[in-house]
Amino acid sequence: MINYNEKNLVNQLSIDCVIFGYQQKELKVLVPKLFFKGDFWTLPSGFIFQEEGIDEAAKRILEQRTGIKDIFLEQYRVFGNVPRTTHAALNSMLELNKSHFDTLKVNDNFLEWLTQRFISIGYYALVDINKVVPNLTEIDQSIEWYNISELPPMISDHNQQVVFALEALRQNLDSKLLGFNLLPEEFTMKELQQLYEAVYAKPFRRNNFQKKMLDLEVLERVGKKLTGAANKAPYLYRFKR
Amino acid sequence: MINYNEKNLVNQLSIDCVIFGYQQKELKVLVPKLFFKGDFWTLPSGFIFQEEGIDEAAKRILEQRTGIKDIFLEQYRVFGNVPRTTHAALNSMLELNKSHFDTLKVNDNFLEWLTQRFISIGYYALVDINKVVPNLTEIDQSIEWYNISELPPMISDHNQQVVFALEALRQNLDSKLLGFNLLPEEFTMKELQQLYEAVYAKPFRRNNFQKKMLDLEVLERVGKKLTGAANKAPYLYRFKR
Repeated sequence: MINYNEKNLVNQLSIDCVIFGYQQKELKVLVPKLFFKGDFWTLPSGFIFQEEGIDEAAKRILEQRTGIKDIFLEQYRVFGNVPRTTHAALNSMLELNKSHFDTLKVNDNFLEWLTQRFISIGYYALVDINKVVPNLTEIDQSIEWYNISELPPMISDHNQQVVFALEALRQNLDSKLLGFNLLPEEFTMKELQQLYEAVYAKPFRRNNFQKKMLDLEVLERVGKKLTGAANKAPYLYRFKR
Repeated sequence: MINYNEKNLVNQLSIDCVIFGYQQKELKVLVPKLFFKGDFWTLPSGFIFQEEGIDEAAKRILEQRTGIKDIFLEQYRVFGNVPRTTHAALNSMLELNKSHFDTLKVNDNFLEWLTQRFISIGYYALVDINKVVPNLTEIDQSIEWYNISELPPMISDHNQQVVFALEALRQNLDSKLLGFNLLPEEFTMKELQQLYEAVYAKPFRRNNFQKKMLDLEVLERVGKKLTGAANKAPYLYRFKR
């Protein structure tokens, strides 16, 4: 990222990705920590090439920053008020790391370009943590899944973005369940309920939940889960194709 | 708009507004026709000042282009693929109107700026056509409400934007009903159903519709509508505050 030529990029426009991960009944968010002096956490972010559509850019950025590809990534909101553009944390990062940038031979123009006002297009995704292996780029010191209630303080408005992304995830979960490709091919109603409970951060009543899910008409019942105790074996479901 | 100094504007970023209007069971869209040689229809559109948040910009643009203010305007999608940037219609408009621009003393730099790739933030609103009076700006030849099924061919991807905006409107109608401020203070279930039927372009069954609306728990019943025929008088509802 650092060695981009800013002339090939759309000016003042960035993309920030909120990657939700689900694992063992918990909802997490993928947060890289930048490889600079000081503690600078950030959402996986980047810029848009002039020859590139925004969805393409989001996929490229996500893959470059995390190694995650072929997932269902959706834009959900643009962050464009003026105060976000003060970028206090970004500026202090640039200040703290001046010499570091010299070592990396970072283009001065690019650094200046970075300190402009940016309007950011927010994308989000929900992935199965077991299925993706995030990796580090040259500008990341670490990349980790943080529980959504224990996020580190990120630069700019990135923590606030997570709040909006979570709202979008909740609003779209019913209709995007299949797309998120989050559950095994066949799953129990309990497994589905655990996913919803993690996303909504609250318990659902079993009967109500089952009724709501069946009413969506996206599930089909495929048999019982073999557990040995035949009477109590839960039904298995899959998504209708 | 024409005499903007492009240096005060965020580069390559525009705002397009889809203003849905409801009147007499019909859903319409507000479409200005540009004041240039040739037939150039467009969504009410504009640009973002450097010192201005995007929501602020959307409100300003809408008010300047239509006279409509204080309405519930929501961003719903960014249009940013590359092909949209060919702007064929825009270029032919600029070509056709060269001499006209000279008369208007339009800045050449601004015209060149206009022909760059633009990524556009889409906003939509739903208004009561009786409550708003659109007005013409210096660059509009006419501004009219068109039935959603009879829109003129607009520049760039504006017709396609209406398709996405309608999808967003449908998806959000339940939760934004109060915000849209579209019905009289007190209304019948039938009036509400007519609104839904116009937005969804399909009939609903009366009983199902009533149940769905009451289940949302946003309505309260306030009495019967006085019609003379007391037995058949429909109930009146209002939104819970």
